[in-house]
Amino acid sequence: MIGVDWGTSSFRAFRLGEDGAIRDRRAAPLGILHVEPGHFADALASQIGDWLATGEARVVLCGMVGSRQGWREAPYLPCPAGAADLARALADIPFAGARVKLIPGLSDTDAAGIPEVMRGEETQLIGTLPAIGRDGIACLPGSHSKWARVEAGRIAGYTTHLTGEAYAALRGNTILGRMMPDGPTDLGAFDQGVGRSADPGGLLHHLFGVRTLGLFGRLSETAAAGYLSGLLIGHEVRAALPQGAEVHLIGAPELCALYARVIGALGGAPLQHDADAAARGLARIGAEVQWN
Amino acid sequence: MIGVDWGTSSFRAFRLGEDGAIRDRRAAPLGILHVEPGHFADALASQIGDWLATGEARVVLCGMVGSRQGWREAPYLPCPAGAADLARALADIPFAGARVKLIPGLSDTDAAGIPEVMRGEETQLIGTLPAIGRDGIACLPGSHSKWARVEAGRIAGYTTHLTGEAYAALRGNTILGRMMPDGPTDLGAFDQGVGRSADPGGLLHHLFGVRTLGLFGRLSETAAAGYLSGLLIGHEVRAALPQGAEVHLIGAPELCALYARVIGALGGAPLQHDADAAARGLARIGAEVQWN
Repeated sequence: MIGVDWGTSSFRAFRLGEDGAIRDRRAAPLGILHVEPGHFADALASQIGDWLATGEARVVLCGMVGSRQGWREAPYLPCPAGAADLARALADIPFAGARVKLIPGLSDTDAAGIPEVMRGEETQLIGTLPAIGRDGIACLPGSHSKWARVEAGRIAGYTTHLTGEAYAALRGNTILGRMMPDGPTDLGAFDQGVGRSADPGGLLHHLFGVRTLGLFGRLSETAAAGYLSGLLIGHEVRAALPQGAEVHLIGAPELCALYARVIGALGGAPLQHDADAAARGLARIGAEVQWN
Repeated sequence: MIGVDWGTSSFRAFRLGEDGAIRDRRAAPLGILHVEPGHFADALASQIGDWLATGEARVVLCGMVGSRQGWREAPYLPCPAGAADLARALADIPFAGARVKLIPGLSDTDAAGIPEVMRGEETQLIGTLPAIGRDGIACLPGSHSKWARVEAGRIAGYTTHLTGEAYAALRGNTILGRMMPDGPTDLGAFDQGVGRSADPGGLLHHLFGVRTLGLFGRLSETAAAGYLSGLLIGHEVRAALPQGAEVHLIGAPELCALYARVIGALGGAPLQHDADAAARGLARIGAEVQWN
């Protein structure tokens, strides 16, 4: 079968064997924001038409392609949900020459009853379940970081933190960013920011300190972005990490390494996984489908 | 004398009687960001030249005009400081035809030793001291909200929260703002946001809820900005408000009214002041100066 992880800014396709192995892969900067409404079928054909031409006719999609702004909106499936639950909830999309099925996102509510949504991360989680086992905690860092609980081999629930998007907005659009040139993360400053997140006063107070440390020459321009990143990720991990928990990290290796650093510093046990969780999840969910 | 509150985006001048009363006033959108370096004297003359021509020769300035980006950088005076301390620390600025003196900002450190800075707010605080009395708490809401402690008639210390600037950055540059048309603050949604700030999970988690409440139709587009505002101000006030404290609010009346609402809801006693605190502070500090 063919698995496609189709997100807001990128398109990644995998040709998958019966055993779930990745036989071939390709990627394009063809996220749903770059596809005109009504042209998703054309976009898919342009990317994987040659694979389909060899006779492959089973395609599974995941990600924001199933959102209101995507090809077709697939209603969220509520937690708890596992691979079989997701496979039963796939949406069929008419497409000439192949059976195209869309994995729905997952919804949940937090302890206060506020809704949660994910699209795409559920597939990465399903792809990582064999490593997590029946019960565990996983974190998917990003613009909207997810912390998921796995119970009895299913995704039991999760919470989201707007950390990555807040970082970009604060860095790009406040006085804090004026002194932050691009460059590699200064890990010493990152750790300082993580430490700062433990102080009283709250995040909004801590943010102003990024400015004053720079004003008084206690934080260099090249270090300030790392400090801000550590401060925000520190706040997230302190709020989300169950004490002493083993945390499976899924996502971009550089960002996962920063989260692993914070989780370790705060008494958790980080475990990093490779970046092919989506492909494995597409294969596992696809394997549960009755294609005939 | 003439008092000038010269900030980043605006210029406000007051003609003050010997008794401190405001005899005349004017304002212009001539903040320091709109003055070319080297042209501050020209800018001042263009705004108050006619007052100077009548024989007035004493001018006191406060605000960001004393910063690195302003007319001349005046080193911060450390807390604690009162009107007399500030008057002794004024910087003289050469100016043809008048004696121009600049009020320095105040520095402090928070409980963790991180620096604090203010420029302009110290003058508003000095102007409000007669109402506050010897001891009290004052809050100056804004882009960088200040919470100050007054002890023995002086500004003993303060903390800053980046609330206003974070609100603008998040509203203008994240997915949260896509559904926020301009309009009056929805007070019901504002109160909901304040309530949300008491939930577990932290601010970065609560921010994502602004998105999901909208997605699920539980927060209308016209209400979302008020909810976000209440969420952020709620986090600030919960972190800064001493239990049951009386809080003197100084600043723009609309914003002070929102803070008063939150302070009252969280068990504090808000007291609102008029918007002329800067003029009163300029007069009080000017009255301490030995002009001859």
